[in-house]
Amino acid sequence: MIQLTRAYFFSASHRLHVPQFSDEKNQALFGKCNNPHGHGHNYRVEICVKGEIDPMSGRVVDLAAMDSLVNDRVVKYFDHKYINQDMPEFKTLVATTEVLGEVIHERLSTVWPKDFPTLDKVGIQETKRNRFTIPSSK
Amino acid sequence: MIQLTRAYFFSASHRLHVPQFSDEKNQALFGKCNNPHGHGHNYRVEICVKGEIDPMSGRVVDLAAMDSLVNDRVVKYFDHKYINQDMPEFKTLVATTEVLGEVIHERLSTVWPKDFPTLDKVGIQETKRNRFTIPSSK
Amino acid sequence: MIQLTRAYFFSASHRLHVPQFSDEKNQALFGKCNNPHGHGHNYRVEICVKGEIDPMSGRVVDLAAMDSLVNDRVVKYFDHKYINQDMPEFKTLVATTEVLGEVIHERLSTVWPKDFPTLDKVGIQETKRNRFTIPSSK
Amino acid sequence: MIQLTRAYFFSASHRLHVPQFSDEKNQALFGKCNNPHGHGHNYRVEICVKGEIDPMSGRVVDLAAMDSLVNDRVVKYFDHKYINQDMPEFKTLVATTEVLGEVIHERLSTVWPKDFPTLDKVGIQETKRNRFTIPSSK
Amino acid sequence: MIQLTRAYFFSASHRLHVPQFSDEKNQALFGKCNNPHGHGHNYRVEICVKGEIDPMSGRVVDLAAMDSLVNDRVVKYFDHKYINQDMPEFKTLVATTEVLGEVIHERLSTVWPKDFPTLDKVGIQETKRNRFTIPSSK
Amino acid sequence: MIQLTRAYFFSASHRLHVPQFSDEKNQALFGKCNNPHGHGHNYRVEICVKGEIDPMSGRVVDLAAMDSLVNDRVVKYFDHKYINQDMPEFKTLVATTEVLGEVIHERLSTVWPKDFPTLDKVGIQETKRNRFTIPSSK
Repeated sequence: MIQLTRAYFFSASHRLHVPQFSDEKNQALFGKCNNPHGHGHNYRVEICVKGEIDPMSGRVVDLAAMDSLVNDRVVKYFDHKYINQDMPEFKTLVATTEVLGEVIHERLSTVWPKDFPTLDKVGIQETKRNRFTIPSSK
Repeated sequence: MIQLTRAYFFSASHRLHVPQFSDEKNQALFGKCNNPHGHGHNYRVEICVKGEIDPMSGRVVDLAAMDSLVNDRVVKYFDHKYINQDMPEFKTLVATTEVLGEVIHERLSTVWPKDFPTLDKVGIQETKRNRFTIPSSK
Repeated sequence: MIQLTRAYFFSASHRLHVPQFSDEKNQALFGKCNNPHGHGHNYRVEICVKGEIDPMSGRVVDLAAMDSLVNDRVVKYFDHKYINQDMPEFKTLVATTEVLGEVIHERLSTVWPKDFPTLDKVGIQETKRNRFTIPSSK
Repeated sequence: MIQLTRAYFFSASHRLHVPQFSDEKNQALFGKCNNPHGHGHNYRVEICVKGEIDPMSGRVVDLAAMDSLVNDRVVKYFDHKYINQDMPEFKTLVATTEVLGEVIHERLSTVWPKDFPTLDKVGIQETKRNRFTIPSSK
Repeated sequence: MIQLTRAYFFSASHRLHVPQFSDEKNQALFGKCNNPHGHGHNYRVEICVKGEIDPMSGRVVDLAAMDSLVNDRVVKYFDHKYINQDMPEFKTLVATTEVLGEVIHERLSTVWPKDFPTLDKVGIQETKRNRFTIPSSK
Repeated sequence: MIQLTRAYFFSASHRLHVPQFSDEKNQALFGKCNNPHGHGHNYRVEICVKGEIDPMSGRVVDLAAMDSLVNDRVVKYFDHKYINQDMPEFKTLVATTEVLGEVIHERLSTVWPKDFPTLDKVGIQETKRNRFTIPSSK
């Protein structure tokens, strides 16, 4: 068994705001991340798969096929967007990195091809200091 | 003579759009950077000063004083903001990294203390691939 | 379930020396790390927690509260110190990065709040080449 | 229990090519990685061991001894070589990073000393975007 | 005036060997870099231009046009190649990073468009430890 | 003409303290860097040389010779030392990074071989945020 962790990148903006909370509570909870017009980040997403090495090709996954899927479902979807306004999912979700990671995991797992190695986990970084990891539930 | 280059960080969002241009021209010129609701980045700003080492303290600059100035004039001003909407300068300026670098240089040079070492240049990075450098004009 | 790994930084000095060993044995075991007056590093500490995302706030942990705890118990405690002389724990402990990681894990786990997500593991790097990971024992 | 992950580096060249496949299939499968005269990378290899901290020395492993073994079996063996031509193993193996990682794991595990902490896994990176991890099978 | 430094990447292999020198002298001069079948690296190339910011677009250069030129003349030309065998220039040149940098500078400067900002210098890194810079001669 | 910037690394400890100043003034000036028993860093030193490429060897400098000189005069001299106590120069000098950079420049320039390319400048980083550059005076 072998694992591959591959990085993808996009730049987007977001605002942390819970509509059910008062302005004071949002401000106390999220600080400057609650500023009214949003702000942005360079996101790094890591897709981790695990499986067996194909004995003929010596590869665990067809990278071109995996890139095509992740670019369609994740990179092109989020890149250069304002997550709160441009993404229908986020009309009712808080745009934290935690939730963004879960949405990315779901956008991949629901269409993950049977002949791909197992989708093991999704990692997401908003800055170099923080990394969230969402393992596939069993 | 010695130079010190010190890095500062902020996260912000922006949109590249020239109001005098048609939507088609903006789209052709800026591509996805012209998306209507903006997007964001983690910015790295490098302030470079040059001067003589003080023979008593062994330092070229009082770092606490320089940090205080740069944090007030640059980091707090731009951090977690939507540059196009939150910054008065950008009502009439295009929010490219080039122009952002020039605005930062001007926000510092106009208040730079006489007893600081010379402000030599300002660098700014939107992503790791691109670095803009604005030297102080003589 | 989601994991968050968050990095903290401090600079400190240390010396590797076992008082029960002869000078020759200390020198053979630790080489230049046994030099008499110590030396130093920029340490990177990674605190990994795991738990559920709060459905209202979209967060796995209150970052401000976690930062406050880790800064008090770890960063301020070790930053700009000579570990062998300034830290009471190290009067009787060898100041290797392994032991330093264990001490950090214990300084956190003994006061870890019940309403925080689980403290999953502590990582520590002395240089970019070496990373020690101390998982919470079950 | 504690884990140590230590990085080693070498530069080498390789070509992805399956002799049993037609030129067209090799080209479709591997693209530019199938170019006839090969190409190269700076490889980063991470060796992860796990064990108990020795109570006297405060260390999980004798780093000098581990470095000596890994340098002999891995770094000196692959550094500044053309993997497809210089390495006997690769006369019959495809020189993908996956297979290279497996070969490195086997070159270490077959000679791993009994008094070393457990060889937990081997990681290998060809570029910063991709990391393969080969856990020791149980 | 403003400078832009933009990074490009390719992976290639090479061998350091001067045909006019004896095998012993080549070995003494280049060590393992003289190994007979070559080895490889991930190269980072930095193209630095300088000019004025266009007052309408807020940009110093049309990045898409510059990328197109550098990709054609440099990245596609060298990527996944064995420099000594695949590149006609290197039939008679030693494939050091210094010479590679000069060849890249010349491949760009000879076709550099008049309406581009000035090509100021070319940087090239074979590993993170070494960076060569070739300024445009005046 | 071409420039080469090559990085070297050492780990050391230091304390910022001016004996002629009162404890209060030292504390106000240097803060935690004045803590009594010192602290440490991983230092990165960059040596920049400039010269012509040798037409036969394709190199600007004999790297092995340059490494030998810099390792002797800089790396071995400072590595795993307490600068304030172990280095005679620092009995009367403040151990700031600025002064450390100047001392390194002088330790190299006074023995720089005539047949080496020109020593152009010395850079030194204590952490990733700060880089000091000492150009050779003319």
